[in-house]
Amino acid sequence: LASTHTALGKGADDLERLWRSLGLDRAGTVVALGGGTTTDLAGFAAATYMRGVEWVAVPTTLVGQVDAAIGGKTAIDLPEAKNLVGAFHWPARTVIDPALLATLQASERANGMAEVVKTGLLAGEALWEFADEELVRRCAAYKAALCLRDPHDLGPRHALNLGHTFGHALEAASGYELPHGRAVALGLLAALRLSGRDTAPVVDVLSPEPVRVDRDRAWEALLRDKKGRLRIVLLGAGGAREEELPEAEVRAALDALISG
Amino acid sequence: LASTHTALGKGADDLERLWRSLGLDRAGTVVALGGGTTTDLAGFAAATYMRGVEWVAVPTTLVGQVDAAIGGKTAIDLPEAKNLVGAFHWPARTVIDPALLATLQASERANGMAEVVKTGLLAGEALWEFADEELVRRCAAYKAALCLRDPHDLGPRHALNLGHTFGHALEAASGYELPHGRAVALGLLAALRLSGRDTAPVVDVLSPEPVRVDRDRAWEALLRDKKGRLRIVLLGAGGAREEELPEAEVRAALDALISG
Repeated sequence: LASTHTALGKGADDLERLWRSLGLDRAGTVVALGGGTTTDLAGFAAATYMRGVEWVAVPTTLVGQVDAAIGGKTAIDLPEAKNLVGAFHWPARTVIDPALLATLQASERANGMAEVVKTGLLAGEALWEFADEELVRRCAAYKAALCLRDPHDLGPRHALNLGHTFGHALEAASGYELPHGRAVALGLLAALRLSGRDTAPVVDVLSPEPVRVDRDRAWEALLRDKKGRLRIVLLGAGGAREEELPEAEVRAALDALISG
Repeated sequence: LASTHTALGKGADDLERLWRSLGLDRAGTVVALGGGTTTDLAGFAAATYMRGVEWVAVPTTLVGQVDAAIGGKTAIDLPEAKNLVGAFHWPARTVIDPALLATLQASERANGMAEVVKTGLLAGEALWEFADEELVRRCAAYKAALCLRDPHDLGPRHALNLGHTFGHALEAASGYELPHGRAVALGLLAALRLSGRDTAPVVDVLSPEPVRVDRDRAWEALLRDKKGRLRIVLLGAGGAREEELPEAEVRAALDALISG
């Protein structure tokens, strides 16, 4: 068992500091207590320390409890891209205590609610209406089941990118000033519009406001992310599906999220 | 396909530089052309870049061709320990050209011959007597077969540590000034003596000379490596086996490798 400070970031420097401070043997376990940044970083350190030791995720934020700490993806950020380096390394155990959420700031809660709405849309159920304990349980269970079906993200798991293509582009265009939850909320709006679906859940629960970023910069970030093929996750009656869309349609959907 | 410079080391800084220079997508392949340092580093970068891309090992040294590039182990060094961080990530392909060995320095060849003798002892065959092409083919095949039986180093693969417990201790005590081949040659000598076996192959082929290092420092390094349990790989009639030996016996075997 290793006790370390909460890391401030998940860059290469943070990783090296964590590696050097672990002092475990092969039978050791890394316990990551914190938000998505902490579980991503500590999980990757565990995946690679002595070629892999066990780890336990204890997510303390709504994003962590419904999304980041579920599914075995670990990663760090490099200046070239977020999550550029990482590993698939499932935690030996994930310990979730929704009581921790009572202490969250409103802005942090909003980040998590965007993922809750995404999960509810994919699950076809208004998960956002449940109280925390049930909401977290259902979202975590939905994501865990999907990830277990596709642990290496080769197909079904792509559904989890619903809204994220647009969200990432807006985040990048803002120089990562835009909170992730607000970016995802806008991205979900675009995905529902392109899918011809009612946008009420996103509008009512997340109240997404258009963001003031450079339109060309957002578009270039989206193209870079997609590497030329505009395959977008849409929401059909039977669930999510990926579809290659015409450039003009995707660009118009992105532009509609941007003000000014 | 990524083209990069040969790395000078396999530290955390080298790794970060390599990660940042790769610029691959998920379908990319890292090709590592060089000695064990290069294949260890590049293989680990490939294991973690975008949570894993393919890599091809093209070992150019005798150590690389008979040992380091075979078996899927990749790693970097940290100040706390060599190979402290890494991954099991088999190359998609290993390309071995023994003709490259003609350009090796004698000291580099000696490093490789120590691993050749180790492999021959394990295989029960005088592999060191073959000409390069056949020698490399047989050593690489022997190690690959053993590693495929035990890809995550949980049992049978421990045989490959023959002589390495003592070798690592001597290297550490020398501040890593002692060449790996000389350390392994001495380690094999100790392992054969403890096994009650004829030491002629090691003496005749590798001519190991006792090394001048601090005896206590070497002993402490050995204990740290073994974490208190003195399980040593010995060579029996039926092949290698691990055996827990009395402290006095192990210490005497180590001391006999040290001069002055």
